[in-house]
Amino acid sequence: MKQYEDKELLECIQNYIGQLSYVHEPENLYKPIEYVLGLGGKRIRPVLMLMAYNLYKDDVSAICQQAAALETYHNFTLLHDDLMDKADMRRNRPTVHKKWDENTAILSGDAMLILSFKMMMESCPSEYVSEVMSTFSKAALEVCDGQQWDMDFEKRIDVTVDEYMNMIRLKTSVLLAASLKIGAILGGATAQDAKLLYDFGVKMGLAFQLQDDYLDVYADSSVFGKNIGGDICSNKKTFMLITALEKSSGQDKIELEKWIKSDDFVADEKIKAVTTVYNNVGVPDLCMEKINGLYTEGLNILGKVSVDDALKNILRSFTGKLMNRVL
Amino acid sequence: MKQYEDKELLECIQNYIGQLSYVHEPENLYKPIEYVLGLGGKRIRPVLMLMAYNLYKDDVSAICQQAAALETYHNFTLLHDDLMDKADMRRNRPTVHKKWDENTAILSGDAMLILSFKMMMESCPSEYVSEVMSTFSKAALEVCDGQQWDMDFEKRIDVTVDEYMNMIRLKTSVLLAASLKIGAILGGATAQDAKLLYDFGVKMGLAFQLQDDYLDVYADSSVFGKNIGGDICSNKKTFMLITALEKSSGQDKIELEKWIKSDDFVADEKIKAVTTVYNNVGVPDLCMEKINGLYTEGLNILGKVSVDDALKNILRSFTGKLMNRVL
Repeated sequence: MKQYEDKELLECIQNYIGQLSYVHEPENLYKPIEYVLGLGGKRIRPVLMLMAYNLYKDDVSAICQQAAALETYHNFTLLHDDLMDKADMRRNRPTVHKKWDENTAILSGDAMLILSFKMMMESCPSEYVSEVMSTFSKAALEVCDGQQWDMDFEKRIDVTVDEYMNMIRLKTSVLLAASLKIGAILGGATAQDAKLLYDFGVKMGLAFQLQDDYLDVYADSSVFGKNIGGDICSNKKTFMLITALEKSSGQDKIELEKWIKSDDFVADEKIKAVTTVYNNVGVPDLCMEKINGLYTEGLNILGKVSVDDALKNILRSFTGKLMNRVL
Repeated sequence: MKQYEDKELLECIQNYIGQLSYVHEPENLYKPIEYVLGLGGKRIRPVLMLMAYNLYKDDVSAICQQAAALETYHNFTLLHDDLMDKADMRRNRPTVHKKWDENTAILSGDAMLILSFKMMMESCPSEYVSEVMSTFSKAALEVCDGQQWDMDFEKRIDVTVDEYMNMIRLKTSVLLAASLKIGAILGGATAQDAKLLYDFGVKMGLAFQLQDDYLDVYADSSVFGKNIGGDICSNKKTFMLITALEKSSGQDKIELEKWIKSDDFVADEKIKAVTTVYNNVGVPDLCMEKINGLYTEGLNILGKVSVDDALKNILRSFTGKLMNRVL
């Protein structure tokens, strides 16, 4: 059985998405969809789906439509999230509501969501359709739950670590997990293997998100490609801020609460001051410990999947690459 | 085989929707969904689905979840359309973006759309799932196409009758048609019967929409429950306005074009003047002819469905009632 490298799978996905002709009439509905899907990105979810499938079968092109459906769904969430967050840019290009307008962003997003269900279903082998679609629709709804919690947390100061972990599980992890599970189902995996791959995806998703939060504070901005400190400026209740609030005391706690309450501040000063508190409290170590713990748990779960262990190395190396992409 | 009256089917739907517990956490996502579905309405689509099913089988409660899925989808479109149209009221209650906010309307709508797919699929007998879901997703996407054309037409003056008929087919008819077709499929109808019921639904949907447009000008507002003349004030390119533009000449044409171009007008004066042109040109008769033609075509198609003709009377009487509801 041929095993594909991540680059080959990415190329397979890119070619498939490239040849899709989303654009037909009415143009004002489909041009924005083509635009969003053409912005690129790492296509992590479809690649994970093909990798999970490739543990069992090697005709990966057979499920490109399902992989592209997941990517279409993911890009729908970015489109509507950017609208709700009033974000102007995505991947260095204007967002749809900036390039067109808000109504276009709403309706094109709706059409992408419907397209993702349509694509996931079409050409799905009938013996798997019910399991695939229930996995997909469950994850799709959970992503909305996660987005709602994320918005709710903006208005609260008392978010706990458990609540935060549950939010990022819903908003980020379950779709990665569902990608792996759907790939496994379509590959003919046992229910147990499909569940193990799902659980592996959940752990990896949590680790990715915590790492993203970590890099938002500690990354080299020239490498990370995003401005540093955005989460600190907006008081985003990340694992790090919640941990700092819980563990700080004395002057550190006073300092942290002062900056959180301040509406009028110089960004660089706030970032520096809050980062100093994080360092004093030992937040970076606690965060890295948590990330490493999740990563190890994920690998242990992957180890239990009942295929030849050597076949799993591509998933290990791909997730490892994602984890270490800038550290 | 027991045949159900429309009132019994409506009660069946209402009970089913009433006992659904949409509300769970996060509350801010699901409360608006419960609110929208609780606003009521005539539940025409689920009733049509059950009626089509009841041509073949009489355990209508077996497909209540699919019927509720269609109603959930329909209410999602109302939610997002009201947001795009900046409408403040729906069924005499504040719309979701007014009662909550725009982001709530976006995300709750997204969740409703996903829920509708999830509900349509779950408990759908496996032998029908692929046909049901492809009928549903095709119609769902076409409704978006219709909404986009509708928004595009607001910015154009040269819309033709054919373009208008195609727009209302997509925006209104295909979902009514799909309701009937899905009911037929689930009832075990032949592909030909399912198609005939779909085509019947398309004709009826066109007739309903043209009648709605007609009533917007000619209804008794105390009965119709909407303000009269809204379409005239907003220059909506309905069958009537397009026909009047095509058929008017001389003073009528000058008058009509003057009112269309005027940004600053007294509503009652514009409504009265444009209605006078419509009357001079014979628009009401042309519109009623078109409605009656479509209605007759629809009944002829229904006549070809291969079940005992007497069973079709409930569909005939229900659509008849809808057509004559205020005339």
